[in-house]
Amino acid sequence: MAEIVTIGELLVDVMAETIGQSFAEPGRYLGPYPSGAPAIFADQAALLGIPTALIATIGEDDFGTMGLRRLRRDGVETRAIRRVPDATTGIAFVTYAPDGSRRFIFHMKDAAPGRLLESDLDPTLFAGCRYFHIMGSSLFSAAMIRTIRRGMEIAARAGAGLSFDPNIREPLLGQPGVAEAIREIAGRADILMPSEADLAFLCPGATTEAAIETLLGGGTKRIFLKLGAAGSLYADRARRIATPAFRVVEVDPTGAGDCTGATFLAGLLRDLPLAELLRRANAAGALAVAARGPMEGNSDAARLDAFMARADSSPVPADGTPDPPEPSPGA
Amino acid sequence: MAEIVTIGELLVDVMAETIGQSFAEPGRYLGPYPSGAPAIFADQAALLGIPTALIATIGEDDFGTMGLRRLRRDGVETRAIRRVPDATTGIAFVTYAPDGSRRFIFHMKDAAPGRLLESDLDPTLFAGCRYFHIMGSSLFSAAMIRTIRRGMEIAARAGAGLSFDPNIREPLLGQPGVAEAIREIAGRADILMPSEADLAFLCPGATTEAAIETLLGGGTKRIFLKLGAAGSLYADRARRIATPAFRVVEVDPTGAGDCTGATFLAGLLRDLPLAELLRRANAAGALAVAARGPMEGNSDAARLDAFMARADSSPVPADGTPDPPEPSPGA
Repeated sequence: MAEIVTIGELLVDVMAETIGQSFAEPGRYLGPYPSGAPAIFADQAALLGIPTALIATIGEDDFGTMGLRRLRRDGVETRAIRRVPDATTGIAFVTYAPDGSRRFIFHMKDAAPGRLLESDLDPTLFAGCRYFHIMGSSLFSAAMIRTIRRGMEIAARAGAGLSFDPNIREPLLGQPGVAEAIREIAGRADILMPSEADLAFLCPGATTEAAIETLLGGGTKRIFLKLGAAGSLYADRARRIATPAFRVVEVDPTGAGDCTGATFLAGLLRDLPLAELLRRANAAGALAVAARGPMEGNSDAARLDAFMARADSSPVPADGTPDPPEPSPGA
Repeated sequence: MAEIVTIGELLVDVMAETIGQSFAEPGRYLGPYPSGAPAIFADQAALLGIPTALIATIGEDDFGTMGLRRLRRDGVETRAIRRVPDATTGIAFVTYAPDGSRRFIFHMKDAAPGRLLESDLDPTLFAGCRYFHIMGSSLFSAAMIRTIRRGMEIAARAGAGLSFDPNIREPLLGQPGVAEAIREIAGRADILMPSEADLAFLCPGATTEAAIETLLGGGTKRIFLKLGAAGSLYADRARRIATPAFRVVEVDPTGAGDCTGATFLAGLLRDLPLAELLRRANAAGALAVAARGPMEGNSDAARLDAFMARADSSPVPADGTPDPPEPSPGA
């Protein structure tokens, strides 16, 4: 039984080693790292002990094997991950600009992630599901949008709430119907986890507060606005809670938003007090940005607790890594 | 007017930095490098002054831009290279095993290279064409096989000969019709440029000499058997010529066979004496393996001449790079 069911791309990331590297010239890349926003989300939720299933398609290749192994190791229910013969596991190449922005080249819609079918939506997977979580990055083609909409119907019939992270990727917005689908699903979500850029896309020209009021007025129950280094802003009809970020040395922001969102939802499912679960979500995000690789910085509860305890007692930025071991006496 | 027309994949290679690296674990990769067997071949032939056109499809992304720029810089006729909206430029990931073998993960048939259409075969491109060169690696799908067969018809009508490098890639042989197409095109080629593995595929169980006799008996006029570090064996009905390889420090074998074959065909088209053109082809291959990247070691005539002159005068392996400059007096 999965309390969270999520759906979409399980892929590998291949990441530029140096800031300012261009796709148009040879350089050094690190990877492949298991990735894909729904996969990162599922991995983090499972690490926190929430039964979580991912519905996805991968190729019959080593890239797919790596992702599948990682999710299994971390406790994700993977029986709805199908290996597609004759398609290659999806890839995202990532470069980092000096201003902190990222550029992507995706092999996704024509690769294994684009082969997801309505028949992959095993209804028994949704029994007992409390939230169906959708990533906007998975709405990359008309076929994916259709499949995910069908998943929303099955989830609703199973009594699950809808959780949505718009997670907008510029190169994907050009696909027909993608922008419309993101807007429509955002309007139907019980929980919305946007970034500031996502919020600006959903409510163009509005201030943050005006956008939040519009979205809460439209039916959304909870908004978890991810602000990166500025922390987060939680909003529901009764309150706003701003939670500062933990200070860390940023190594790689990829995946941090997905990881933060999963920790937020896991906290709701375990009925943690709001202030505490918001702080935990930010701690998870801090640990994620301190590690290279999209899900290399995902954390279990013990790691989150240790990090938060260390952050409380330390006036200097934590770097997210454990203290180095003492050298052994004979070394 | 293009004396050589070739067709197929213009892609980028992303290459493992370390021998023994696995696709199933994160590591360091170098790239993207412009690649694709027909593209490497076209680039090398153009560098040697042979008017050469490539028919290919790339995405509207930086990977495609890089390949296109490189070919233009080196003089390849690129007007039949079409940018496909909504598809990503092809990618080949390469790892190297300690035994010298390579493993590949391709994003090709479902990416831009797989979008080549019969309408991309502009017949005016073939006016004055002397050889239509096909790479077996381009026969990766039923649609590609159909398009390339159509190219063969247009080339034959234009009076061009057929040049074929079987260039077999294990992961592609599983596609329906690929093995059959390679065998059939090999049977129709005027010039055949196999590796030893290709020869074993075409004539299973036969000795090299028996395979050569079979192929020459079937209509092939010239065979240029590429033997890697053992050099090459040329065969026609009148003779066999074994040409030793130049000794170099091998950095990266990728692309060396394509580069060697292009230099062989360029020599034929310029009526160089056989012994000389075979030696030049091996020199081009040596320079190719001494450079990292599939077409980073391609050479113009001056570079080949300089390398051969240096090899003649040096008892130690040449490394393919110019001598380091003298340190400046004040350094």
